[in-house]
Amino acid sequence: MLKPLEDRLVVALEEAHEQQVGGIVIAQAKEEQPVSGKVVAAGPGRLAENGDRLKMTVQVGDQVLFDKFAGQAIEVDGQNYLALREKDVIGILD
Amino acid sequence: MLKPLEDRLVVALEEAHEQQVGGIVIAQAKEEQPVSGKVVAAGPGRLAENGDRLKMTVQVGDQVLFDKFAGQAIEVDGQNYLALREKDVIGILD
Amino acid sequence: MLKPLEDRLVVALEEAHEQQVGGIVIAQAKEEQPVSGKVVAAGPGRLAENGDRLKMTVQVGDQVLFDKFAGQAIEVDGQNYLALREKDVIGILD
Amino acid sequence: MLKPLEDRLVVALEEAHEQQVGGIVIAQAKEEQPVSGKVVAAGPGRLAENGDRLKMTVQVGDQVLFDKFAGQAIEVDGQNYLALREKDVIGILD
Amino acid sequence: MLKPLEDRLVVALEEAHEQQVGGIVIAQAKEEQPVSGKVVAAGPGRLAENGDRLKMTVQVGDQVLFDKFAGQAIEVDGQNYLALREKDVIGILD
Amino acid sequence: MLKPLEDRLVVALEEAHEQQVGGIVIAQAKEEQPVSGKVVAAGPGRLAENGDRLKMTVQVGDQVLFDKFAGQAIEVDGQNYLALREKDVIGILD
Amino acid sequence: MLKPLEDRLVVALEEAHEQQVGGIVIAQAKEEQPVSGKVVAAGPGRLAENGDRLKMTVQVGDQVLFDKFAGQAIEVDGQNYLALREKDVIGILD
Repeated sequence: MLKPLEDRLVVALEEAHEQQVGGIVIAQAKEEQPVSGKVVAAGPGRLAENGDRLKMTVQVGDQVLFDKFAGQAIEVDGQNYLALREKDVIGILD
Repeated sequence: MLKPLEDRLVVALEEAHEQQVGGIVIAQAKEEQPVSGKVVAAGPGRLAENGDRLKMTVQVGDQVLFDKFAGQAIEVDGQNYLALREKDVIGILD
Repeated sequence: MLKPLEDRLVVALEEAHEQQVGGIVIAQAKEEQPVSGKVVAAGPGRLAENGDRLKMTVQVGDQVLFDKFAGQAIEVDGQNYLALREKDVIGILD
Repeated sequence: MLKPLEDRLVVALEEAHEQQVGGIVIAQAKEEQPVSGKVVAAGPGRLAENGDRLKMTVQVGDQVLFDKFAGQAIEVDGQNYLALREKDVIGILD
Repeated sequence: MLKPLEDRLVVALEEAHEQQVGGIVIAQAKEEQPVSGKVVAAGPGRLAENGDRLKMTVQVGDQVLFDKFAGQAIEVDGQNYLALREKDVIGILD
Repeated sequence: MLKPLEDRLVVALEEAHEQQVGGIVIAQAKEEQPVSGKVVAAGPGRLAENGDRLKMTVQVGDQVLFDKFAGQAIEVDGQNYLALREKDVIGILD
Repeated sequence: MLKPLEDRLVVALEEAHEQQVGGIVIAQAKEEQPVSGKVVAAGPGRLAENGDRLKMTVQVGDQVLFDKFAGQAIEVDGQNYLALREKDVIGILD
């Protein structure tokens, strides 16, 4: 797997979103809305200017909502994920 | 529901505004003015550079006034909301 | 009334300025100059990075001079006001 | 008079400059050079991030040199002045 | 070899990526995705504003994933490498 | 004379440069190179965010090298000078 | 010689690069790559916001690799050099 640096998260996308990332844009009324996914790996947090790690709120296993245009599509072990920063996460769905 | 991160708020829009977000722009004299809504969820506050949380002023239940163009439209449990940051709130209506 | 957040002020505009905000631009030689108004509500001050509130100088009742293009027109209880930040106030008239 | 906020200064312009501010540009070889004026009111200093006031160097009565394009033309008690920030002052003439 | 400064890394590219850096763009479905490489040299870390070094997470020998457009192509001892900053590394592959 | 504020310097230009500032561009091979001048007045140093003055390195009398496009042409007591900030000085010639 | 300010370095360029700086661009496959040179003078380090000098890593005599477009061409005692900041140095060659 990938061990993310700083406050980065590796997120497994929900199917609908993954298709859009792959280039297939599905016509839908809400296509500008944020999408969600499950966190499969999380970094240790951002390094503050005083050398301390700023603790992460998001944990592995969390279902998170984030902006559709945030992050970078990555491939790890043949699987597609999104790498994004915790600061781009709007909230945790429960 | 959604547990917002940092200083984010989830706001239930007043009806007039919701229609505009959905694409129906109603002709009105004051359409450039800020709009209001009720806070249904609030984050724990922004993480300062020294690792402390900066306390929130806005609480769940508050009626807030904010710029019409602030925030992102989100859908949670089939309901439409606006996710915005406390720094984009002009004030609390009482 | 509106309880402003951070270092925001709610200002009751002088009549001449209010008309311009409402779209009626009156021909005048000094129309690019700052305008003044009376503060009717003031926030608690901006939150510094260390968590302290930075004390406000402007108080409710002060007559303030500010840039004509600063702030946002808002409507509270059927009255028109301008919401602006203390940092956009040039000075207090006495 | 006007009580300036932060590190703002109220400066009485020398005559030549005042005319240019009023829209009459006088042809002259040095028109791109900084201009000078007398400080008639000075703010208490900028508020630092730790809540302290940063002491002002410029005092009321000082003759200051500043960039021709700095500041805002204001009118107080029927007189024309320039409001500018201490950081835009190049130096004090003695 | 090169002793990198601050938080810079010297990375030996995987072959596919090296060809693209050399100007030969190979048609492929995933060409916009991040690429990986092996760290052959690492700086001591960025100098914080208080004079302390901010400790590096990435070590020599790590296989790192980074954005395809990050860093600068360099040549050391006749070999091609990429010099990039730790902040541009998405994560460590294990 | 002029008492410069913050980290500003008043520099007496060498003749070749002064002519260029006055509008006469002399054809020469090195015209894009930095120019030098003698410091005739120096400010007390920039005020740091904690209220301390940051000590100046450049002293009155120093011959300094600076970028040709740095600073502002000023006139004091009928003499032409350049006002520039210490941060724009490349180095001291000895 | 020149005593550089802050974190500036004076670098004697390798011949190939010097020619390009002088305007003669030699056709070559690697012309976009960083170039190297020998440090002949080094500043005391950048002044941090708390008034301390941030210690330099690069020493006089070091052979450094830096981006081809970094720094400014200067002439001191009839010799051509490049003045650049330590932050633009990629690494030290050994």
